[in-house]
Amino acid sequence: MTYRALDQNSVIDYMRDLGGLDENIPAAAAMQADEVGDGNLNLVFIVRECEAPYRSVILKQALPYLRVAGESWPLTRERMRFETQALLKQNELAPELVPHVYHTDDGMSLVIMEYLANYEVMRRPLVARKRFPHFADHISTFMARTLFFTSDLYLTGVEKKGLQATFINPHLCKIQEDFVFTNPFMQSEENNWNPLIDNEVRAVRSNSDLKLAIAEMKAAYMTNGQALIHSDLHTGSIMVNGSGTKVIDPEFAFFGPMGFDIGALLENLVLNYLSHFAHTPDADERRAYQEYLLDLVREIWQQFAAKFEELWLQNSRGELMPAAYWDFPGGTEAFARFRSRYIAEVLHDVAGFGGCKMLRRMMGIVSVWDISSIDDPTERAIAERLAIRIGSRWVLERKRFTSIDGLIDVVREECRTVESRHDNT
Amino acid sequence: MTYRALDQNSVIDYMRDLGGLDENIPAAAAMQADEVGDGNLNLVFIVRECEAPYRSVILKQALPYLRVAGESWPLTRERMRFETQALLKQNELAPELVPHVYHTDDGMSLVIMEYLANYEVMRRPLVARKRFPHFADHISTFMARTLFFTSDLYLTGVEKKGLQATFINPHLCKIQEDFVFTNPFMQSEENNWNPLIDNEVRAVRSNSDLKLAIAEMKAAYMTNGQALIHSDLHTGSIMVNGSGTKVIDPEFAFFGPMGFDIGALLENLVLNYLSHFAHTPDADERRAYQEYLLDLVREIWQQFAAKFEELWLQNSRGELMPAAYWDFPGGTEAFARFRSRYIAEVLHDVAGFGGCKMLRRMMGIVSVWDISSIDDPTERAIAERLAIRIGSRWVLERKRFTSIDGLIDVVREECRTVESRHDNT
Repeated sequence: MTYRALDQNSVIDYMRDLGGLDENIPAAAAMQADEVGDGNLNLVFIVRECEAPYRSVILKQALPYLRVAGESWPLTRERMRFETQALLKQNELAPELVPHVYHTDDGMSLVIMEYLANYEVMRRPLVARKRFPHFADHISTFMARTLFFTSDLYLTGVEKKGLQATFINPHLCKIQEDFVFTNPFMQSEENNWNPLIDNEVRAVRSNSDLKLAIAEMKAAYMTNGQALIHSDLHTGSIMVNGSGTKVIDPEFAFFGPMGFDIGALLENLVLNYLSHFAHTPDADERRAYQEYLLDLVREIWQQFAAKFEELWLQNSRGELMPAAYWDFPGGTEAFARFRSRYIAEVLHDVAGFGGCKMLRRMMGIVSVWDISSIDDPTERAIAERLAIRIGSRWVLERKRFTSIDGLIDVVREECRTVESRHDNT
Repeated sequence: MTYRALDQNSVIDYMRDLGGLDENIPAAAAMQADEVGDGNLNLVFIVRECEAPYRSVILKQALPYLRVAGESWPLTRERMRFETQALLKQNELAPELVPHVYHTDDGMSLVIMEYLANYEVMRRPLVARKRFPHFADHISTFMARTLFFTSDLYLTGVEKKGLQATFINPHLCKIQEDFVFTNPFMQSEENNWNPLIDNEVRAVRSNSDLKLAIAEMKAAYMTNGQALIHSDLHTGSIMVNGSGTKVIDPEFAFFGPMGFDIGALLENLVLNYLSHFAHTPDADERRAYQEYLLDLVREIWQQFAAKFEELWLQNSRGELMPAAYWDFPGGTEAFARFRSRYIAEVLHDVAGFGGCKMLRRMMGIVSVWDISSIDDPTERAIAERLAIRIGSRWVLERKRFTSIDGLIDVVREECRTVESRHDNT
């Protein structure tokens, strides 16, 4: 269909013209649509049935330009193709952990998908110290399955490259290349940071070892096509409630390093941890929740590693390697060492990418709400300085980590001074 | 044009229908065509003018099946698209070092290109101890320019991924994945080797450290999209004469690790070195030529590294990184360290990939003519055992090499026993 941007009336006509959605709103139903979301890059409508059973769906359509800047800043609508493709692939691999897709339309750059009633974006409940007993299990399953089944460990070379070809996503990659690995660490007009951490920001930008390490992580992000990654898996891309977890917004998806997804998630949990020095003045309450967050970090990694390796053991069809390659005296042990080294390299990447992303949130185009919502700049600076120290060490020390406890210990060590200061006041 | 396989008559009709080639054979000329080459995967014709100035061209057409196996083994004609695209790109980046392209036809899966009169494939003259005074300069220029200008160091992210998308080459990659990194090291019916080295072959196939390292090199080959590599740059893909060098047959081209090209070349020079224990019985002559070959190995790497770094310094437009990123006190030195670490990593890959390829030539589907032409199995086994020892050490010790001398020292150390044995006889 030829592209035209929908509004809250034409979206209903569009729904009717489809002739109804499988297992969801039928064409003849009375419907109403509301535009939600910021409508800057995308239009997002909730379309609801006006009568029982009051079913509802999300219709998301890409705009051909950045609306806030007017039509002068065209953006490619193609990003909706990547979002749609990724959603479909994730539905295939981890069906309960992403919204169901009801309908896609490349010409119109839109997707109609499950409305996640009773779910909320994870960032705010984490600030409110909510706990999600199934989250580590769910998200480790999501990552283990989406990463394993799109890697050379499961796919044949021909299958993997065929899939990779459909996920060459240069413009969205460019956004991460610029805003995660480059601009925050040099003069660039969109950067902003708390003036109280001027010295720390300057120090990062002129730390030779760190700049070199960040450049190496950028090279890895740009070249290491390990698996189909979400590529923006922070706690703002995850919706949760007491029983479920849904990963959304995969428009950045491409074949990149697995550690970038895992690093993004764990780094966001650490930033949330740091935000509680301000958000949770009661020391007992704070410590208890911070321990919960570090347990989450450990659980997510350990469950990921265990599930990933289990999938590997159960599925020996991949290009890397056929079972016959390990068929020699001592081959079982050699294969076990290969798996363990492979996963250890992913952990190094988790630290490297997680560290870069932690740093960029402190001095780039956009922080995270967990921290930007701390009103008092002095209180905010406490969390920010810690994030800079932890992020720097994760990047610089990435190759020495042999377990997730190494990354967690860095968090504890750097927070020790602040802990004791808080305890004394 | 709809595909049909040409023969020596229809090829001339095809040439006439083109209406003449720029700066080459005009449509009206009297022409004759001869089929050359093995005609197994491709048809190769030399088309010549029958009268002065007797110009000639090569017309190369992909067959849709492996001719020797009949039509039962279909192969994708698409490989000609990769060869053509790669030739055009290489002509743009290193114009004197590849055949000129006069005409391409995707529908017919053919390319018409420069006939390299007075050139010969490099393998045989190396066995005949010929020297090529310009070769190190030429081939290092070819590699430095084709690899640098297709990498993230020169291209923007969007440019590079656009180019990468046109070089997703799954079927040809699969051939290298199988025959370089997998099948030679396990039970596979096409493998063949000298029965005299049975023990050594068995030892490689059950050496856990080596198998693990080879699996890691395969993973790197499959995921590390650093630059547009030739991906089959052995001395059988290079034509030479006293003054010129031409790289041919780039149908395996895709975005892979730079070290795979350099490693293939250097490893082939080492295999040629080893072949002279049999081909050149005169000790003085042999030593002199072997020294020449090791000088070549050193020169090629050192000139490559110097030219590559110089291109990097002269062209600061690439995604990795903008000049502003290094604009801080000490930034010049940090950038120098980044370049030097980047090139050091390429050297590690040279050793890793070169070693894998050296091994596979001893126990896989096909050896190299340098060594397979040694008639006496006992003499051949001397070279083969050395290749296995050197290849194994290159792979296993790859990360400790800080200069090309490290790789060369391994060759000298392993050859010492044979040298002295030869000297005593």
